[in-house]
Amino acid sequence: MYDFDAFLDETREHVNRALTAVLDDYLTGVDEWLTEPIRYACEGGGKRFRAILFLASYEVSGRAPDHRVSRLATALEIVHAYSLVHDDLPCMDDDDWRRGRPTCHRAFGAERATIAAAAMVPLASWVVAEEARAMGLPAAESAVLVAELSEAAGPQGMVGGQVLDLISEGQAVTGDELVEIHRRKTGALIRAAARLGGRVGRLTPPILQAVTDYGERVGLAFQIADDVLDEEGTTASLGKDAHSDRELGKATYPGVFGMERARAEARRLADEAIAALRRAAIASPALEGLAIHVVERES
Amino acid sequence: MYDFDAFLDETREHVNRALTAVLDDYLTGVDEWLTEPIRYACEGGGKRFRAILFLASYEVSGRAPDHRVSRLATALEIVHAYSLVHDDLPCMDDDDWRRGRPTCHRAFGAERATIAAAAMVPLASWVVAEEARAMGLPAAESAVLVAELSEAAGPQGMVGGQVLDLISEGQAVTGDELVEIHRRKTGALIRAAARLGGRVGRLTPPILQAVTDYGERVGLAFQIADDVLDEEGTTASLGKDAHSDRELGKATYPGVFGMERARAEARRLADEAIAALRRAAIASPALEGLAIHVVERES
Repeated sequence: MYDFDAFLDETREHVNRALTAVLDDYLTGVDEWLTEPIRYACEGGGKRFRAILFLASYEVSGRAPDHRVSRLATALEIVHAYSLVHDDLPCMDDDDWRRGRPTCHRAFGAERATIAAAAMVPLASWVVAEEARAMGLPAAESAVLVAELSEAAGPQGMVGGQVLDLISEGQAVTGDELVEIHRRKTGALIRAAARLGGRVGRLTPPILQAVTDYGERVGLAFQIADDVLDEEGTTASLGKDAHSDRELGKATYPGVFGMERARAEARRLADEAIAALRRAAIASPALEGLAIHVVERES
Repeated sequence: MYDFDAFLDETREHVNRALTAVLDDYLTGVDEWLTEPIRYACEGGGKRFRAILFLASYEVSGRAPDHRVSRLATALEIVHAYSLVHDDLPCMDDDDWRRGRPTCHRAFGAERATIAAAAMVPLASWVVAEEARAMGLPAAESAVLVAELSEAAGPQGMVGGQVLDLISEGQAVTGDELVEIHRRKTGALIRAAARLGGRVGRLTPPILQAVTDYGERVGLAFQIADDVLDEEGTTASLGKDAHSDRELGKATYPGVFGMERARAEARRLADEAIAALRRAAIASPALEGLAIHVVERES
């Protein structure tokens, strides 16, 4: 029988090792004033959901990810870690706790945290471009990988979503506006994780499209589940400040639709994600497990 | 006779138009909360030295840059504009004036300036990857372009140099350490501008190497000339806070070696840059003019 929890734990360990190796290589000779907050932000635990999703999507190709594929996957975690450092900054959400430890700016000061965050975005692009080249990917693909990751991270994606999130604080938002915020803030990078893994695995266009459809739904479900957890969790269980969304007057799914509809919607999206795979005859216990995990996790 | 000033003015206008078009295209549908500070940071004047250098380097191929080439060149200005926003932030140098106007955070607040800066790095990578693809460059080249730009912008390059610059404040530095700070903080992006233009122009390896040698020297000369200008200029002539380096106790060439040796060293580097071109039989009045301009400019 397929052991999803074992897959999750083993792949997370695998990602953690690859990430440490990538940071060792790419930060050689860089001053510890900069490498310490980058390492702190990247290595301090975390679910590694985006890199694991990338690898599960890659495995749809039928091949097991090798050393290089895992290294490329870490770029998604570097972008994600950057977004957390950035989001937590005093001039943004001003949070104190993240992944069960002080936030990066609490540990290193706003100056080191800000500059570390700024370094992490080009670092991630560089990792993708270099690793794609090193693994001998068809070269057109390398450029597409960086373009898709950059689009997902940039003003049309994650950063744009953070902006919508900020400017909607304390405002009434419609359900459509909320979905748009989620789609950019969280969905774009999760969708990119699924697509990039599929691209590196050289999935055929219809299979890649199914994985994309899956990634879009899982991305939205992920953010709704996050909002539900923020409402019902404690700072201890989450490892970050609980109820911070509500205090900031953020637009959340439970806030707009109530907890019950929020939970149901997350579940519906996870089901739709799985249905998208099955329609394309993709048999991936890992991707199906991840979709369910997203809405059933406790942190 | 070659009219360098006309070349500079025309090319600058050309870059400004391309940059506006790129921002129009790539920021479509993004909220003005984010697009306003990005546009303010990118469009508020500036010498456009990096994009002009890119285009002059491209022209070594013997072809005139078309529409797409100019669009790609603007990525260098986006990265450069990002670095200025970032450098000026309250948690960094805390400057009030830039390009003759209030700095981005003075105009829009630290929150909008910080998030705009964060959006500009993936934006630049995205522009390079998309424009390279649109112009039908050999695809291996597209990946190399993004990798080189990201390396130049990241912890091994510009951001790493900003860090060395910060941690050396108020410290005694050796000449070698100073060169290393300059090489990363300013040199890496200028070198990348020269190389990327050459790569897009598909220069042969020895010609690209000569352009790289040129770019390295011009990058160092540029920073030394900047430090000299900071010492002798006024806020009105520079359009940014004058004497701010000295007040911050920054490591500068005039500070370590005195004004006279600083001026002589900048000039020597410009001469070496031109010599590197001539040894490779590159006849480029534009590149030669830029090297001289760097050390003779008044702002």
